[in-house]
Amino acid sequence: MPSFTVYKGSKDGSIQKSQTTKGDLKNDEVLIRVTASGLCGTDEHYRTSDMVLGHEGAGVIEAVGPAVRSLKKGDRVGWGYEHDCCGECTYCLSGRETFCPERKMYGYADLDQGSFATHAVWREAFVFKLPEGLTDKEAAPLMCGGATVFNALRMYNIAPTSRVGVMGVGGLGHLAIQFASKMGCDVVVFSGTESKKEEAMKLGASEFVAMKGKKELDIGRKLDVLLVTMSAQPDWSLILPVMAGDSIIFPLSVSGGDFTIPYTPLLLQGIRVQGSIVAPRNIHKQMLQFAALHQIKPVIMEFPLNQEGITKAMTTLNEGNMRYRGVLVPEN
Amino acid sequence: MPSFTVYKGSKDGSIQKSQTTKGDLKNDEVLIRVTASGLCGTDEHYRTSDMVLGHEGAGVIEAVGPAVRSLKKGDRVGWGYEHDCCGECTYCLSGRETFCPERKMYGYADLDQGSFATHAVWREAFVFKLPEGLTDKEAAPLMCGGATVFNALRMYNIAPTSRVGVMGVGGLGHLAIQFASKMGCDVVVFSGTESKKEEAMKLGASEFVAMKGKKELDIGRKLDVLLVTMSAQPDWSLILPVMAGDSIIFPLSVSGGDFTIPYTPLLLQGIRVQGSIVAPRNIHKQMLQFAALHQIKPVIMEFPLNQEGITKAMTTLNEGNMRYRGVLVPEN
Repeated sequence: MPSFTVYKGSKDGSIQKSQTTKGDLKNDEVLIRVTASGLCGTDEHYRTSDMVLGHEGAGVIEAVGPAVRSLKKGDRVGWGYEHDCCGECTYCLSGRETFCPERKMYGYADLDQGSFATHAVWREAFVFKLPEGLTDKEAAPLMCGGATVFNALRMYNIAPTSRVGVMGVGGLGHLAIQFASKMGCDVVVFSGTESKKEEAMKLGASEFVAMKGKKELDIGRKLDVLLVTMSAQPDWSLILPVMAGDSIIFPLSVSGGDFTIPYTPLLLQGIRVQGSIVAPRNIHKQMLQFAALHQIKPVIMEFPLNQEGITKAMTTLNEGNMRYRGVLVPEN
Repeated sequence: MPSFTVYKGSKDGSIQKSQTTKGDLKNDEVLIRVTASGLCGTDEHYRTSDMVLGHEGAGVIEAVGPAVRSLKKGDRVGWGYEHDCCGECTYCLSGRETFCPERKMYGYADLDQGSFATHAVWREAFVFKLPEGLTDKEAAPLMCGGATVFNALRMYNIAPTSRVGVMGVGGLGHLAIQFASKMGCDVVVFSGTESKKEEAMKLGASEFVAMKGKKELDIGRKLDVLLVTMSAQPDWSLILPVMAGDSIIFPLSVSGGDFTIPYTPLLLQGIRVQGSIVAPRNIHKQMLQFAALHQIKPVIMEFPLNQEGITKAMTTLNEGNMRYRGVLVPEN
């Protein structure tokens, strides 16, 4: 009967320490000791909910249930947003289980566990072996942030010959620059000011555009793809003139409200607006292999995995000072 | 030196009769005698512009320029929205010349001719031989309306196994029902009331939903595709719950302003919003072949091709009384 410490949101937004007890491991369940957890903007959305936070987990297997096939004690693993699906609908049967109407996701079930914790119990089917060449701290932010940007590029078959815009250099954006450039794409980064230019170029950008004060953009060849990674919506009057015909826009960052885009250019330029979230397992595995092969790593800031550390990390993120992904690490 | 009668918009919205004179036919130009012209909602947008209206033309070749290769005097032809492109950009070279940044389109050039006319001079390259089995009157509305709905289904590889929603039974919608059902799709039609149900079922729908007063829709299997053919935007709170994961929405009907859709379902359901206009030539030819093979024909109302007839047809369309596409036919 595993029992462990977890960190939850609460009505007033303060982080609460709590205890979770699980029944004996059954079927393909595994018990994982958390060694690192990324902090994602989505955690902030659930900060005032009575639920355990964290969905960018990395850790080590401590025990396995009776039906576990490939994982064993001591294995390094990671896990992310999804933790179950029906396994038999058209989406599940075609390797697109992120669309399964019965999928269970972080924030959608009344979970009593997450990656802000000392341990967690998950189904082996939704846990990924970590490749050599990525530490636990490096792998954790890939579980949601990395999967989100990689899925957009991979599921929708973005060509290596594409000119790819990345709007926003943050947790998602700084990973998107690396994934797209290692796929061979010509990457143009859009940011408010010049402050992140040097880092963006080092991560693989071929061009950097500071948007502030600009009335129009001059980037030469137009964009085949645009990944919008900030939660604010872009100024379309600046962006649409640099989108190519038959191009694709991914509004990746989750926010409430409406997505709004001028209608006439959408039609006349044949633009595709593609909703996309994290990756189905097949693509998630490709993402980890690709990151390990090309040494695509998040730039991280470390915080202790306890009440104070989580609170401080969330403050750093909210104030716009995270460079570029917060990772919580257990003390000792 | 061809000289012929044309019908133009004007500041006050009245239809003006005018004369156009063209130089001798050069290169691949052909002179066409108009035998029928469809009336499209887009014509209404240009009604107050000083330009010749009409872009759903059908007619007979009367003379050919020196570089014309395959057309000859007496051939039955049709033409639509586009009349030139650069011929050498990545879009033109890949058979997607509707995305060519140098394409010339109805309403974008200061044209002194259109299909509301006795004659027109066009490049052979943008004129299509009409197949046997479709009369001129039947073919004309396919040149824009038919091409628009067929292109959405064909360019974006909609599967014959898809469940396809058609919202709105009008000029575009009544053709979309026919094309999609002949492609093997399971077609669900959405309309305000039951008034068009019988006709929609006859055209190939397998299910008809009257939306008026509905608080939620119950259609069983969800939609893989939705073609929005009315200019008003749908009530997303009704529609999004019946869209499948990884589904695609085509907002086909041109209007100004913004396209707006709730953000969270767009992401979580992985929905694609695809801007799409008329078809590149390759797909336009497939559309004509497919329509002839399956006897897909517009349901038309005829008006004389003169000032009074055009005015009356536009009034009929504006008042919502067109069943389902107006066709202007020269008197004599």
